[in-house]
Amino acid sequence: MRADIITIGDEILIGQVIDTNSAWLATELNKVGFSVRQITSITDTPEHITNAVEDSMKESDLVIVTGGLGPTNDDRTKQTLAKLFNTTIALHKPTLDTIKTFLDGRKMPLNSNNFGQALQPVGAVILENTEGTAPGILFERDNTIVVSMPGVPHEMKAITTNKVIPFIKNKFNTVPIINRTVLTQGIAEAVLAETLEEWEESIPDYISLAYLPKPGMVRLRLSARGDSSPYINAEIEMLIDKLYSIIPDAIFGQEDDSLQSVIGEILAKKGLAIATAESCTGGRIASFITQIPGASKYFKGTVVAYSNEIKENILKVKKSTIDNNGAVSEPVVREMIKGICDIMDTDIAIATSGIAGPDGGTPDKPVGTTWIAIGNKNIQIVRCFCFGSDREKNMIRATQTALNMLRIFLEKSDCNYR
Amino acid sequence: MRADIITIGDEILIGQVIDTNSAWLATELNKVGFSVRQITSITDTPEHITNAVEDSMKESDLVIVTGGLGPTNDDRTKQTLAKLFNTTIALHKPTLDTIKTFLDGRKMPLNSNNFGQALQPVGAVILENTEGTAPGILFERDNTIVVSMPGVPHEMKAITTNKVIPFIKNKFNTVPIINRTVLTQGIAEAVLAETLEEWEESIPDYISLAYLPKPGMVRLRLSARGDSSPYINAEIEMLIDKLYSIIPDAIFGQEDDSLQSVIGEILAKKGLAIATAESCTGGRIASFITQIPGASKYFKGTVVAYSNEIKENILKVKKSTIDNNGAVSEPVVREMIKGICDIMDTDIAIATSGIAGPDGGTPDKPVGTTWIAIGNKNIQIVRCFCFGSDREKNMIRATQTALNMLRIFLEKSDCNYR
Repeated sequence: MRADIITIGDEILIGQVIDTNSAWLATELNKVGFSVRQITSITDTPEHITNAVEDSMKESDLVIVTGGLGPTNDDRTKQTLAKLFNTTIALHKPTLDTIKTFLDGRKMPLNSNNFGQALQPVGAVILENTEGTAPGILFERDNTIVVSMPGVPHEMKAITTNKVIPFIKNKFNTVPIINRTVLTQGIAEAVLAETLEEWEESIPDYISLAYLPKPGMVRLRLSARGDSSPYINAEIEMLIDKLYSIIPDAIFGQEDDSLQSVIGEILAKKGLAIATAESCTGGRIASFITQIPGASKYFKGTVVAYSNEIKENILKVKKSTIDNNGAVSEPVVREMIKGICDIMDTDIAIATSGIAGPDGGTPDKPVGTTWIAIGNKNIQIVRCFCFGSDREKNMIRATQTALNMLRIFLEKSDCNYR
Repeated sequence: MRADIITIGDEILIGQVIDTNSAWLATELNKVGFSVRQITSITDTPEHITNAVEDSMKESDLVIVTGGLGPTNDDRTKQTLAKLFNTTIALHKPTLDTIKTFLDGRKMPLNSNNFGQALQPVGAVILENTEGTAPGILFERDNTIVVSMPGVPHEMKAITTNKVIPFIKNKFNTVPIINRTVLTQGIAEAVLAETLEEWEESIPDYISLAYLPKPGMVRLRLSARGDSSPYINAEIEMLIDKLYSIIPDAIFGQEDDSLQSVIGEILAKKGLAIATAESCTGGRIASFITQIPGASKYFKGTVVAYSNEIKENILKVKKSTIDNNGAVSEPVVREMIKGICDIMDTDIAIATSGIAGPDGGTPDKPVGTTWIAIGNKNIQIVRCFCFGSDREKNMIRATQTALNMLRIFLEKSDCNYR
């Protein structure tokens, strides 16, 4: 089963609003077996609305239109759709009652705009809106369904969940689409593709693979329809198992995991306390770790030592170590680890020192050079990376890389740290 | 002049990724006088790509296609467009050189996937990508331009800014749309709209106003076409001046300013050093401050004191102060300010302590309660805020609010801090 989504209104076309409704709708439609063929944002002229809806009706079984049903005059969707389905507009008594009840609850009077919202296309199915004054409208022609809903996200979501999804589940005999996502860190997309070439060739043709890069990570998504093979779930599971055996260190989680959530779970389970000593990452590692609710169970704190003075006075990095090696060096991140574990009394720590850019690079240590250490007073794992020339990206990559180094260390070591 | 934007790739259609590229592109195209007619997200089948591009070419002068140019096998855009424009693919030597230089900088070898990216449609204009390995491609037919770019946001943005915008400005004779944006912090959108009602009524009808809320700030944008009045720039300037007189403390900058860039300039100019002592913001204030290149001139460092132990041992907050008032309290943030200025030897500091949520709230101090202090050993400005129930949003609001308090303090005080 195929669906199209059409979004009406200028605010998306002038870049003022980012269309988050469509991603939400696509996810919900996927769950009940619809694949979304096309998402279109259009202006609110009757001609553009008519053309877009007619084009989509030719290609898909379900067309969902959002926006253009508000109480103000620039909304022409309802009239245009009524004309397209050869019907007229008339008072819809149940809608008027719902609007009255809704406004009463907010102690607001009924005005003429609201009354206009109770006028609905004759013969259409009217979908009650418990969250606002404009109901959804459902039309049907030749087994194709067109649903129109207001664009306000919580109203659209309520109508979809309560009315649209039950209707289409009942109407169409659908098979859900299965999506599984594996999250990797530390291997660039092109290298990953080369490494996985053989594995990729082993994927049966009814399962599709997509590479989805994001700053500091690449996500691998396997998709299939539930009816493509009786063993589909088992087959995807086997492919993922194989993947773990090819790139064990790079995979840090699946689906909605993040490095900080995965690390949080391990630290909480092992009862370990962590701190960070950050130079070039400027507090980003701490802010990633503290995104997780309950991080205070394992995260004690951070020293951002942006100046050498702070590295020396607070983290107790020796002046001679900095003088002899520079602040961006292996000995310095080792001493930062020892210092932060000491003053924050933690089992483990992360330390970073690098040249984020755009200035400060030298031929020996170009912009992007970053030393990262993981460990404690007894043991430190230290690595040097060459990221790129973009300051913000270098900081995010250093953060993700450090968190992944920590994850690997926590998973492999026996945790007798102190 | 009209433009269409087409986004290729499953990740948007299955709801995994929200399309932020199109909003950015629409804004940039507006600036040079293009209005966006339609934004379409489609699957990566050759048929769908061909149909969508052909449909858009009938309606618009410029068609921008993003996505589907990555190094992996799920990308078919380039081949499809070459066919649509009746040309073939061949090695494009300058692209190969750019890719080699790009990979050399990252100490990565050239692989066959990268080599494939150097194959380009013959006769098309190849737009160099300084941020990645897939260049942009520009086709022209009957005065209509079709541009294809990778979907990775920073690569797409670099190619658009450096290559596409200059090309279309040169090619089409457009009247730019004038956009001026004023940035405010600390007043909620609805309250701001009420405060500015009279000012809003004084705006002439050829200048339009938009409220653009973002976490922790509201942007006010005034727009007009360059040909709508000969005095357009002067009129907008007058409106902005008036705005400053109505809400002086709330306005922290214009256009691409950020609180951290504005503060950075003031601190550098006044020769002041700053540090932060963060509890509930978990390092976010430090990471905002360090986004600015050259922040090391004025930013010394941070202690994230997530546990009370760190507040006491490192920031020297008295145990009795915490015991008597709780960690989320005015006396604690005052002592955090004194402690951090002392150990980091700075002129000024920011301190935060709050309940970010979702847990940890009490009837007295519900989730969202946040104490923020600005100052040094001699003087502290302290305020308490009640943000909302969302953890991440509370952290961002606390960060923006703290930075704006600092800005107002720096602009108003005489800077004899110590």
